[in-house]
Amino acid sequence: MFDVNKIRGDFPILSRTIHGKPLVYLDSGASAQKPQVVIDAILRGYGEEYANVHRGLHHLSNLSTERYEAVRGTIARFLNAADPESIILNTGTTEGINMVAYGWAMPRMEAGDEIVLSVMEHHANIVPWHFLRERQGVNLRWVDIDQDGGLDPQAVIDAITPRTKLVAITQLSNVLGTRVDVAAITRAAHEKGVPVLVDGSQGAVHAPVDLQAIGCDFYVITGHKLYGPSGSGAIYVAPERMAEMRPFMGGGDMIREVRKDHVTYNDPPMKFEAGTPSIVSAIGLGAALEYLMDLGMENVAAHEGDLRDYAVQRLSGLNWLNLQGTTADKAAIFSFTLNGGAHPHDISTVLDKKGVAVRAGHHCAQPLMEHLGVSATCRASFGLYNTREEVDVLVEALELCHELFA
Amino acid sequence: MFDVNKIRGDFPILSRTIHGKPLVYLDSGASAQKPQVVIDAILRGYGEEYANVHRGLHHLSNLSTERYEAVRGTIARFLNAADPESIILNTGTTEGINMVAYGWAMPRMEAGDEIVLSVMEHHANIVPWHFLRERQGVNLRWVDIDQDGGLDPQAVIDAITPRTKLVAITQLSNVLGTRVDVAAITRAAHEKGVPVLVDGSQGAVHAPVDLQAIGCDFYVITGHKLYGPSGSGAIYVAPERMAEMRPFMGGGDMIREVRKDHVTYNDPPMKFEAGTPSIVSAIGLGAALEYLMDLGMENVAAHEGDLRDYAVQRLSGLNWLNLQGTTADKAAIFSFTLNGGAHPHDISTVLDKKGVAVRAGHHCAQPLMEHLGVSATCRASFGLYNTREEVDVLVEALELCHELFA
Repeated sequence: MFDVNKIRGDFPILSRTIHGKPLVYLDSGASAQKPQVVIDAILRGYGEEYANVHRGLHHLSNLSTERYEAVRGTIARFLNAADPESIILNTGTTEGINMVAYGWAMPRMEAGDEIVLSVMEHHANIVPWHFLRERQGVNLRWVDIDQDGGLDPQAVIDAITPRTKLVAITQLSNVLGTRVDVAAITRAAHEKGVPVLVDGSQGAVHAPVDLQAIGCDFYVITGHKLYGPSGSGAIYVAPERMAEMRPFMGGGDMIREVRKDHVTYNDPPMKFEAGTPSIVSAIGLGAALEYLMDLGMENVAAHEGDLRDYAVQRLSGLNWLNLQGTTADKAAIFSFTLNGGAHPHDISTVLDKKGVAVRAGHHCAQPLMEHLGVSATCRASFGLYNTREEVDVLVEALELCHELFA
Repeated sequence: MFDVNKIRGDFPILSRTIHGKPLVYLDSGASAQKPQVVIDAILRGYGEEYANVHRGLHHLSNLSTERYEAVRGTIARFLNAADPESIILNTGTTEGINMVAYGWAMPRMEAGDEIVLSVMEHHANIVPWHFLRERQGVNLRWVDIDQDGGLDPQAVIDAITPRTKLVAITQLSNVLGTRVDVAAITRAAHEKGVPVLVDGSQGAVHAPVDLQAIGCDFYVITGHKLYGPSGSGAIYVAPERMAEMRPFMGGGDMIREVRKDHVTYNDPPMKFEAGTPSIVSAIGLGAALEYLMDLGMENVAAHEGDLRDYAVQRLSGLNWLNLQGTTADKAAIFSFTLNGGAHPHDISTVLDKKGVAVRAGHHCAQPLMEHLGVSATCRASFGLYNTREEVDVLVEALELCHELFA
């Protein structure tokens, strides 16, 4: 039974006020708040059980290693990956995609090779590919979205040519909330022999993920959006791709032997985890994912679906508000502008005075902004701890904006 | 007044026991323990003030941004860097050196170009250069150390040839405790037009650092060795090198504008900070450095100097113990083996039963191990919270090892 009021009690920050008003946190799309179990795991990690991992033999180092390594299995369970060894721990999506760009794509892509991506990708799933364009002449092939913000899988598949070496696609738009049928795209891309990277930064937050059903080659998550610590994250890499990938960062832990004239690397996944990792942040991510699995991601999805439906109903009553992205099954992420040209920054500032935290800007998705014909939007992004009452507070605050700026 | 007993009270983990014995933590060289102020900063970061940085306009985002950006200035003060904008926040030394390898060295080094480094570098300051050797034919020129573990600056300078493009050198050996005169090396290298990267992972922990006096081009630190959170760190980059360096990781925050066919980058240092950073870990690092500056790094150095002298005196009384690295001004880091061939792993395990945490292995310094003619050592590495009494406990426990394994 998903009791949102009980759940809110798990998140200490939600009881605070902003400008004397209760915090209405609608910026989980940028970064989610943390439940006490995550904070407690960090506290315990530093206060009672801390040491460096892997290379010690003393009690604290063994304990820390055990806690850290257990996270790999937790992530595998959370994503339904067949093998924990296919999970590389890192600092989040940006590092994950850059690892694929530097470690897998760079050595195997030539001038004229192509990467297919959608116009609603986050910059984290764009800029690493721009590096390959700038540095070695790779072409980016962009797939447009529909009027309602939907992405037709067939449009992605049709963009694949004999020069396509990778499809890099989001599972869920951070701006529009649009869900993408990444399983269908992966099936069709694989039929054409093209690997698929799925950006699960948002997708993994709002519904259960089944990597064995999706079948993609790379799947990235970022811990701070998953109610875990900032600076935590992971990437799933399919065994065939893992075998093809060369090391990204060099340093401790990822080697087997270092000589003056020679180096051999550790087995995957360690081969791709250089240096002392973000030990305690990773342990915190493990606690966050256990928390989510205890709630049940299908329950999270149902609750957020209810919030979405209620928000759609309330927001569609505001005829001076332009909502971007209206697919029926979207996540509870709402980007909008107001008639009359009030700048999203000003709207955000007014909402803040009412305790409502939303984000304003390009949301690291400038090609999408260009497609939509705007330079910025306001974005209210809901998380598992939000309520219908908070939708009402948002709507009231927007009405105030309308009065002020109309 | 440096009161070590009072200071020990600042570190909650130091009051715990291991196998029923008080914890004697002599593994700070691998990772240091955290004072309560760091833990509190993390608690406050997640429990009261959390949001994503830079791209929000609401109260929590502004607050989080302010706290995060203040760390840049704290690090600059700690290192006596002239300009906070020369500090790039990252996850530690490994990321810092890989950034230099990928972003600065890779595009400007050709087959036959050379990098000068010492045999006592940590793998983090070796493997990224091996990548350049493997991938583009760069040669690594190794400088040997003296019998006592010292590194003659002139030997480094003499290794510079017209093909040398970089000197990459540690300030303080993580295995031997040897201090290196990186200022002298930098002066001479600069006279020959060669930039210098200094690995300050250990150097910054044990004595005041004055980057304006050293004058090096790159200086890397890692937060978890500086009594800060794992997954925090920074690199200082001199303005001329910063201007030459291309972006390492691509993603949010490091761009000015992203279009379908085109990308422009943010100004430094943001250009080199892609994606949502380890916000709260960085804030925790700031708290750690403030704590160290409050203690006074010169006081930390004096206390550790006293520990070194006492430990040298006690350990040199054990004629069955082979101590590596005997320079007079070394840091309180002691690598050793025992006569009779007891494996360092076994020694570590016995010490652990007495509550003494030391590290055993190659300490991510295999070229040094090869130079010393061993495959592994035990290492007792002291931090600011250690005491003479703990030296005594170590010696007692070593005497037990001697009895057991002799």
